[in-house]
Amino acid sequence: VILLISDAAQANSYKSIFKALKPGSTLGLSHGFLLGYLESIGETFPSNIDVIAVCPKGMGPSVRRLYEQGKSKKGAGINSSFAVHQDISGKATEVALAWAVGIGSPFVFKTTMTEEFKSDIYGERGILLGAVHGIVESLFRRYVSKGVSPEDAFIQTCESITGPITKKISKLGILKVYEDLSPADKVEFEKAYSASYKPSREILEEIYDEVASGNEIRSVILAGNRLKEFPMGKIDGTAAWKVGEKVRANRGDPSAIPLNPTTAGVYIAVMMAQIDVLLKHKHSYSEVVNESVIEAVDSLCPYMDYKGVAFMVDNCSTTARLGSRKWAPRFDYILEQLAYPALDNNVPVDSKLIKDFVENSVHEAVVQCAKLRPSVDISLFAETTTKERAIV
Amino acid sequence: VILLISDAAQANSYKSIFKALKPGSTLGLSHGFLLGYLESIGETFPSNIDVIAVCPKGMGPSVRRLYEQGKSKKGAGINSSFAVHQDISGKATEVALAWAVGIGSPFVFKTTMTEEFKSDIYGERGILLGAVHGIVESLFRRYVSKGVSPEDAFIQTCESITGPITKKISKLGILKVYEDLSPADKVEFEKAYSASYKPSREILEEIYDEVASGNEIRSVILAGNRLKEFPMGKIDGTAAWKVGEKVRANRGDPSAIPLNPTTAGVYIAVMMAQIDVLLKHKHSYSEVVNESVIEAVDSLCPYMDYKGVAFMVDNCSTTARLGSRKWAPRFDYILEQLAYPALDNNVPVDSKLIKDFVENSVHEAVVQCAKLRPSVDISLFAETTTKERAIV
Repeated sequence: VILLISDAAQANSYKSIFKALKPGSTLGLSHGFLLGYLESIGETFPSNIDVIAVCPKGMGPSVRRLYEQGKSKKGAGINSSFAVHQDISGKATEVALAWAVGIGSPFVFKTTMTEEFKSDIYGERGILLGAVHGIVESLFRRYVSKGVSPEDAFIQTCESITGPITKKISKLGILKVYEDLSPADKVEFEKAYSASYKPSREILEEIYDEVASGNEIRSVILAGNRLKEFPMGKIDGTAAWKVGEKVRANRGDPSAIPLNPTTAGVYIAVMMAQIDVLLKHKHSYSEVVNESVIEAVDSLCPYMDYKGVAFMVDNCSTTARLGSRKWAPRFDYILEQLAYPALDNNVPVDSKLIKDFVENSVHEAVVQCAKLRPSVDISLFAETTTKERAIV
Repeated sequence: VILLISDAAQANSYKSIFKALKPGSTLGLSHGFLLGYLESIGETFPSNIDVIAVCPKGMGPSVRRLYEQGKSKKGAGINSSFAVHQDISGKATEVALAWAVGIGSPFVFKTTMTEEFKSDIYGERGILLGAVHGIVESLFRRYVSKGVSPEDAFIQTCESITGPITKKISKLGILKVYEDLSPADKVEFEKAYSASYKPSREILEEIYDEVASGNEIRSVILAGNRLKEFPMGKIDGTAAWKVGEKVRANRGDPSAIPLNPTTAGVYIAVMMAQIDVLLKHKHSYSEVVNESVIEAVDSLCPYMDYKGVAFMVDNCSTTARLGSRKWAPRFDYILEQLAYPALDNNVPVDSKLIKDFVENSVHEAVVQCAKLRPSVDISLFAETTTKERAIV
């Protein structure tokens, strides 16, 4: 039985679903949310079934379209992670791998359902969705307040991230962004990185704790109960995103979009802080890289690049949409309150922090994972439906 | 035994404290956090003791100073609520009331410890601290973006709230702010109220759910464990509060501070949304008024008026400081994303909402509570210490 209904529906219906499962059957999930929910209320899966997960690192419709492209294009298809949570038949691993092959994943990474739901929910609240939104809003305001025109401020923030910064990370890794900067830009990057790492690390530690403790999952369920009375509102009615529409409409040569070193310093500081929290909690490198780097640059930022923040966030699962709305403002405020004042006050570069960044063991893993990248870029829109729904 | 150590310390040490209590003794608390914490982990108080709470509606040092003023000034002293949670001796109510009299409370309101911790933690995350911070930041940016000078924008937001708006509410009630506006200003107020009520209600419903479910209390405990590595950062390093310092330094006649009708509409919409959530959950009027109105206008806004947002927030308990940092950005974002675009798009006044506001049953309760106001204003600074610590 492959259970692909929404997180909230799983939480609300798990009892009747479990009751209907025949002993010895296999329950397949596309991520670990249900396990997280069961743990948060002291429940477990029935003991007489296999429980496995195959978790594609991208959106549902994209999984389908890259699968179809896989017929003719070698290497097309979305990579997945897989987990075997209960194996009473002794064959759960084979079934999970077969399922992953069946949906056309060119590469499949091993994880556990606990690690998966933690890193997945944590990651989408961080750099994948919430953090990148807060970074763009706060940097946009910062540049405008320094006298930059709104259009150029949007180019120096959102366009710079979804363009040259993520493209370089996708193909060549995080460190290469820094290494390729001019000496003067390197200094700007280092200043922004130094000012941003610790404040964003603070929020990321909080997110990890909230997810691991079950609080975040309980919050999603509570929010689900409120959604009927208070449907999720628009997030792109603000100045930045109105300007963004204009900028995208007038977009010329993509290679002319600048790689702003301050923007890169902030964005990569948050990404590295996110990675360091996962490494501290002993997540596997494949999970760290997928949930903090590959999914950001190859799966999600392309959506924001194509149609703005709401198109990125609101094509995701309800859990991801709620989490992004919850945490983006927190990143915005902590950067505005702590990181940018440090920049304005010329707080010196933290050379220890830069050294840790340059020597971080994740870089080699990112480069290796980049080689496992599907040969086809993510599919941004469905040809037959007007709406994308994602499994982040 | 009166237990006045910090919330986090109570949560960490309750086992050894309970073990040391003699059977038949009385445990006195200054608010209901410990009950909330025990409920969140499925524990209870020992069954062989009385458990009571006396909860002053103001800061610890202020309680002391108003108590001292009470020797010579009739009616000075901070009002309290009281709760009897366990009464095995049959005398717990008398002890609680005697304690309240002992600290010099001129009026004492009945509540329960459950209602108290919910309304208290909820209230400080809302209009008392978190919401007012988010309102000021977002309105300040809005006015500046419309071409108002930063100094005047600060006057039209923070100064307008901590000056004429809260002073009128304190003495004459919420409705009087609206009634005394000119016809043109009434329209501005109604527009701002209509645009702001529902978005802020959404966040306030979320806060209430998070507090009532125990999530917020668990978050405070988790945050306490992170504070050693990540001490709470400054919140007033941003542009608005730098300007605020200047504005306060040049403050002339306080009666010249304008009552901005848009600011009043936003502020009062959030306050009314907060009230309506408490009424929906059947809190007593004394609690609703104290935790959403009196404490805002008489206890907390005077701190922000005197020295800015950090002086207000960071004189409060760790629980309040954490909650304020967590929720201010959420109010900011939802107003910026939904309320202000509605204003810019000239969305019509919601006359049903205005009618509900004018006819709200809370207004009479506020006016009655305003009559029970201590005869002396809150004491803003300690003469013998450099730091205020509050029990919010």
